[in-house]
Amino acid sequence: MFFIKNSGERMSTKPGAERNLKQQSLREADAPHSLVVRFDAADALHLDSGGRLTPLTLAYQTYGVLNAQKSNAVLICHALTGDQHVANANPITGKAGWWENMAGPGRPIDTNIYFVICSNVIGGCMGSTGPASSNPATGKSFGLDLPVLTIRDMVRAQARLIDYLGIERLFCVAGGSMGGMQVLQWAATYPERVYCALPIATAPKHSSQNIAFHEVGRQSIMADPDWRGGRYLDEDVAPSKGLAVARMAAHITYLSDEALQRKFGRNMQSGAERSFSFDAEFQVENYLRYQGASFVDRFDANSYLYVTRACDYFDLAGEYGGSLAAAFAGTKTRFCVVSFSTDWLYPTSASRAIVHALNAAGASVSFVEIESDKGHDAFLLDEPDFMGTTRGFLEAAARSSGIISNPTTQSTKS
Amino acid sequence: MFFIKNSGERMSTKPGAERNLKQQSLREADAPHSLVVRFDAADALHLDSGGRLTPLTLAYQTYGVLNAQKSNAVLICHALTGDQHVANANPITGKAGWWENMAGPGRPIDTNIYFVICSNVIGGCMGSTGPASSNPATGKSFGLDLPVLTIRDMVRAQARLIDYLGIERLFCVAGGSMGGMQVLQWAATYPERVYCALPIATAPKHSSQNIAFHEVGRQSIMADPDWRGGRYLDEDVAPSKGLAVARMAAHITYLSDEALQRKFGRNMQSGAERSFSFDAEFQVENYLRYQGASFVDRFDANSYLYVTRACDYFDLAGEYGGSLAAAFAGTKTRFCVVSFSTDWLYPTSASRAIVHALNAAGASVSFVEIESDKGHDAFLLDEPDFMGTTRGFLEAAARSSGIISNPTTQSTKS
Repeated sequence: MFFIKNSGERMSTKPGAERNLKQQSLREADAPHSLVVRFDAADALHLDSGGRLTPLTLAYQTYGVLNAQKSNAVLICHALTGDQHVANANPITGKAGWWENMAGPGRPIDTNIYFVICSNVIGGCMGSTGPASSNPATGKSFGLDLPVLTIRDMVRAQARLIDYLGIERLFCVAGGSMGGMQVLQWAATYPERVYCALPIATAPKHSSQNIAFHEVGRQSIMADPDWRGGRYLDEDVAPSKGLAVARMAAHITYLSDEALQRKFGRNMQSGAERSFSFDAEFQVENYLRYQGASFVDRFDANSYLYVTRACDYFDLAGEYGGSLAAAFAGTKTRFCVVSFSTDWLYPTSASRAIVHALNAAGASVSFVEIESDKGHDAFLLDEPDFMGTTRGFLEAAARSSGIISNPTTQSTKS
Repeated sequence: MFFIKNSGERMSTKPGAERNLKQQSLREADAPHSLVVRFDAADALHLDSGGRLTPLTLAYQTYGVLNAQKSNAVLICHALTGDQHVANANPITGKAGWWENMAGPGRPIDTNIYFVICSNVIGGCMGSTGPASSNPATGKSFGLDLPVLTIRDMVRAQARLIDYLGIERLFCVAGGSMGGMQVLQWAATYPERVYCALPIATAPKHSSQNIAFHEVGRQSIMADPDWRGGRYLDEDVAPSKGLAVARMAAHITYLSDEALQRKFGRNMQSGAERSFSFDAEFQVENYLRYQGASFVDRFDANSYLYVTRACDYFDLAGEYGGSLAAAFAGTKTRFCVVSFSTDWLYPTSASRAIVHALNAAGASVSFVEIESDKGHDAFLLDEPDFMGTTRGFLEAAARSSGIISNPTTQSTKS
């Protein structure tokens, strides 16, 4: 697999094969295996907090070809712990891109038709400015010196990238979970720049329960003595245990009760006999421990604090006097809102609230609740109805926008 | 408030007023403010693990008067982190007993009629043998040397207490959550000793999701460096941060999404302005942190491992060849199964599984789903329909069993 480095140099890697994953992860924050654009102090990003983010670095991947009219760009927004590696092997884990089933040649987000862009969110740890990035002012990582960020800050940063790429209007902005929040924010903040929008398995604001689960994760990280007040990178340690527990708790919320029951039930690791110990005896325990342990190899603990906080702050109506419909007033963007029937993290009721607001704003909106027993995670998995919905929505919009021509009417003999 | 100490001495305390709560909590494990019965090695408790528990110490409270026929005893089984202090001020926290709204004079479990007993579960930390208890063989606390326990072990220990009190048959066994599991186990293991049974907000087995949440809690505790492999009491430290995070995660599961939304929503601690920090800014964060911090003052971390593990092992059908109905075959016990509509920890579907099995076994069973937005915690709160159901069920059973006489038929002139 070839990646374009920020130096422009092309290099071949065997991701995750030999080097220490953690070191690789750290290096990824400053020298990612991605395209990079850096805005210097004159172009600092003004933040919702009143602070400024500088230097603003954005690491991104693209797939497909931007057409001459620059009218076929699809911006994919990634979820909480996702990254820009939508459809290529992840440079840290070596695993397939997180949405390869959705984006690629012939896929629902068809890179033979669309030019797909995905950038690491600011606050992340895969090359865009985040707490693990080097602060030029100190020569050390930002840590908690990085200002606290919002979803709108993330979207404003993405808009810089889209400007830089010379794209006036995005054909589509699509994403699930925290990515879906960014989609909604894009449509509200830059309505004229979004032809169609695909917010998936998301919510117009973070609920009390959502905040509560995130707070458990943050407390778990900050309770780890190796967090060192957020300065662990300077001291060559990492709050891995706290981060792993945070991931375990979060992971439960990504799966439905039904999915856990189907996948693991009460199955034991070895046969039916209880060991009468505190080892990982049930398969679900082993699974969770694995999820926690593998996560710490690829994700920065402080980044986890920043991205969870950004979600917690998300309340789109709050930016518009408490009216979600006002956020979309006069919009010409076409929306397709998708939820999954067993998603209890961002349940269908949250998607319905989005749809009601869009209807009240007179927007063009389709709404699909996909029947699935897989919970929130369904948006990352092979769900034929979901993939069909995405393909159909994009194709129809692509025809109406002129990206692809209408099929030639053919007479058939019956 | 007066408590009967194990020495028989009556002492007056102002619980939690002056002494260090943690020290008090530790002392409670060996010298509780409760009645105590101790069985020595000759009477060791044989455990499901194959091990033996000795000495077996049981700390318990009683309320009301045992009648001459010894036919009016109600055994209340407490939940995961509950204790025997049902209806008196808790000796550690000084707060009201955990079920004072339910048990007491004139209350649904009316101590003017019934003799109420509640013992601390084995594995607990309020005076019954648990990991914080002194091991006579070493002079130190048991820690993880205590064998891993099951719900059936807890119930067998309670049966010892009931024997000791000279009670052949309990009028009722009642309890919610883990207490409800004990109720089911009592009815299955000692059917002839339970006249009626009230399993509340519980399940016939722990689900994969239930196990997953418990595992997060255990991992959080064991990840705390002050856990010291379970020997923290010897080293005069405590894994308080890990235990607090465990409690925070668990606490979310006790409340419904609706209850969190109603109580806290997205309300900020101070006004509407965001502080752009990682402080407890949302009220729900502050609430959770308080829940975590106050819990560690009253509960032993190793006990948390033991009681969660006992729940995880609970699978009543598993003891009867996979048939839950077989667990209740031929039972004459009258059951009233209660669930709460927004309880997602032990949802109504789990109660229905119990009811179906009881029906299949030909048992006498009533089933009530209480409409409540309070989630699992509803069984501890003032829920008029729930309290009415309990009162009515017990009164009817008390009449049919002869504890109370049928009301004199009075002719009224209309």
